[in-house]
Amino acid sequence: MRGAILYAPGDVRVEDRPDPTILEPADAIIRLSATCICGSDLWPYRGIEPIEGATPMGHEYCGIVEEVGSAVTTIRPGQFVVGSFWASDDTCELCQAGYQSACEHRVLMGTIGTQAEYARIPLADGTLVATPEPPSSDMVPHYLAASDVLGTGWFAAVAAEVGPGKTVAVVGDGAVGLMGVLAAQQLGAERIIAMSRHADRQKLALDFGATDLVTERGDEGVERIKDLTRGLGAHSVIEAVGTQESMLQAIRSCRPGGHVGFVGVTHDAAIGGMDLFMSLVHLHGGPAPVRRFLPEHLQLIENGDIQPGRVFDLTLPLDEAAEGYRALDERRAIKTLLTV
Amino acid sequence: MRGAILYAPGDVRVEDRPDPTILEPADAIIRLSATCICGSDLWPYRGIEPIEGATPMGHEYCGIVEEVGSAVTTIRPGQFVVGSFWASDDTCELCQAGYQSACEHRVLMGTIGTQAEYARIPLADGTLVATPEPPSSDMVPHYLAASDVLGTGWFAAVAAEVGPGKTVAVVGDGAVGLMGVLAAQQLGAERIIAMSRHADRQKLALDFGATDLVTERGDEGVERIKDLTRGLGAHSVIEAVGTQESMLQAIRSCRPGGHVGFVGVTHDAAIGGMDLFMSLVHLHGGPAPVRRFLPEHLQLIENGDIQPGRVFDLTLPLDEAAEGYRALDERRAIKTLLTV
Repeated sequence: MRGAILYAPGDVRVEDRPDPTILEPADAIIRLSATCICGSDLWPYRGIEPIEGATPMGHEYCGIVEEVGSAVTTIRPGQFVVGSFWASDDTCELCQAGYQSACEHRVLMGTIGTQAEYARIPLADGTLVATPEPPSSDMVPHYLAASDVLGTGWFAAVAAEVGPGKTVAVVGDGAVGLMGVLAAQQLGAERIIAMSRHADRQKLALDFGATDLVTERGDEGVERIKDLTRGLGAHSVIEAVGTQESMLQAIRSCRPGGHVGFVGVTHDAAIGGMDLFMSLVHLHGGPAPVRRFLPEHLQLIENGDIQPGRVFDLTLPLDEAAEGYRALDERRAIKTLLTV
Repeated sequence: MRGAILYAPGDVRVEDRPDPTILEPADAIIRLSATCICGSDLWPYRGIEPIEGATPMGHEYCGIVEEVGSAVTTIRPGQFVVGSFWASDDTCELCQAGYQSACEHRVLMGTIGTQAEYARIPLADGTLVATPEPPSSDMVPHYLAASDVLGTGWFAAVAAEVGPGKTVAVVGDGAVGLMGVLAAQQLGAERIIAMSRHADRQKLALDFGATDLVTERGDEGVERIKDLTRGLGAHSVIEAVGTQESMLQAIRSCRPGGHVGFVGVTHDAAIGGMDLFMSLVHLHGGPAPVRRFLPEHLQLIENGDIQPGRVFDLTLPLDEAAEGYRALDERRAIKTLLTV
């Protein structure tokens, strides 16, 4: 099969890789309907996260089940399925508490690489959620978005305790931040302030439910949020970037007693103890338990209630993944879908 | 009146200070029944928190109202009252949300100095809670504890979402940590693991409701908590120290999806973004909104349900405050009460 491999920073190639096979009885093999490139793929692509030799890329996926292992009981060949970037058993104590991304038996899909024609999915019964029928091709992008960005933005909104009557600020206008806007709208927020200075992303934010736009960043951005909230700060802040500046911007934009949900991978950030102490905010985040939300999200997509696939503004064949990475890296695209 | 003044690190003196007077119509003047020395008073005493010239000390207090300003409507002379280290109006949006320590009109009592015979209390109606009758002198220490340590430990427990069925770990065996143990017991925790290596504090922790003791610290302490929780970590962790080591110990002792409540003043700590991201814990803390809990706490004390004043293991006259600071600094005392 064809699959994307990162050889070195900036050097992604799509080449022939061995077809995956069932390795464990709980595995399934899926034929991908589509895959995509994540903002977090840019960390190794930019050399910020080191790689050890040639690394298969990708952790987002949806597709048709081809084969299942002997221990798989609920997932069947022919089903259209969506899973998350952490394979999880969905039965352990942490999964049952809603933290499938910390499953006691979790497997990181990024180590398998789903920017490919086929993928092995560990713990298939726990990981995968099937639709009643395979969707039409125009619906595939929405389901693919449910594999990561939708659930990640949604988790940030839930972590930020977004709800009716609340003012929400969203730091970050990438695909995850935009999904945070969509989630905030679905969760009933009264006011959704999207922080963005890019016209295309501003437009999508407004389409997804943003009520206000703030173009300033850092301390100026914080001041604008304060101006819009009688000096108090937002009740809920979604952080979807993962830098030192964005984390501080999020914490400072939040009122005492408010909630910051953060899902940006915070490689280079450190939060000063006194910043956090004096802010009196609640802070929660990390690798999103996307699996928690999949059944609900697949239903919302099937109903046509949400169109998360609209974040894909560039579609390329898998073989042109390298251009997809470049476009994302240079911010020419919000998110790149790769057809398989 | 007599009052404690910090002149330089290690140099506390009790000397004559002007009697306080009503400065604002919302003020009250109280005659202190007792006051005490806080772990956070050690920051400037040790020179870690700089002071600008001679500084009145103390922010914990209870006593009899002597006089009230013209705008005070509910608090009356002769009442026995308890207040928190933040004076607060108890009416603004943040107070109403339960964050009186972030009141829009808050005044830090530490700038007034309550290690003294009398104190001016700003925003008296919002700040002070009165008992039905002045208590007997043997009850005064319990009410004094409600002014800070009880409410601070309790806030940490609430921030850590302590409740029935949960395992709670308490990092820090100072007065606030011990109050965290008491709060966890009152809030119905199933298991309360106190981390302490001091026999006197261990005994008090057990009296307050601890079910397990862990003497190890740092990574070893974390491993012991994991051993006691099937490798997962505690549901709730109370952090009551405020150092880099204690914050990391708290975060690492907590399971994914669990809650860390921190109230140690985190002067010299910085939380690595990836530590926090990968932990998937909830983090909440800061200056405790003690006022939120005062009505409930005064009732629990009056009923004899809790005896928080047991944390005072050294009682000295106000004039011997310097010895009280030394005893606390050298860990010869858990908490020092000063009689007035």
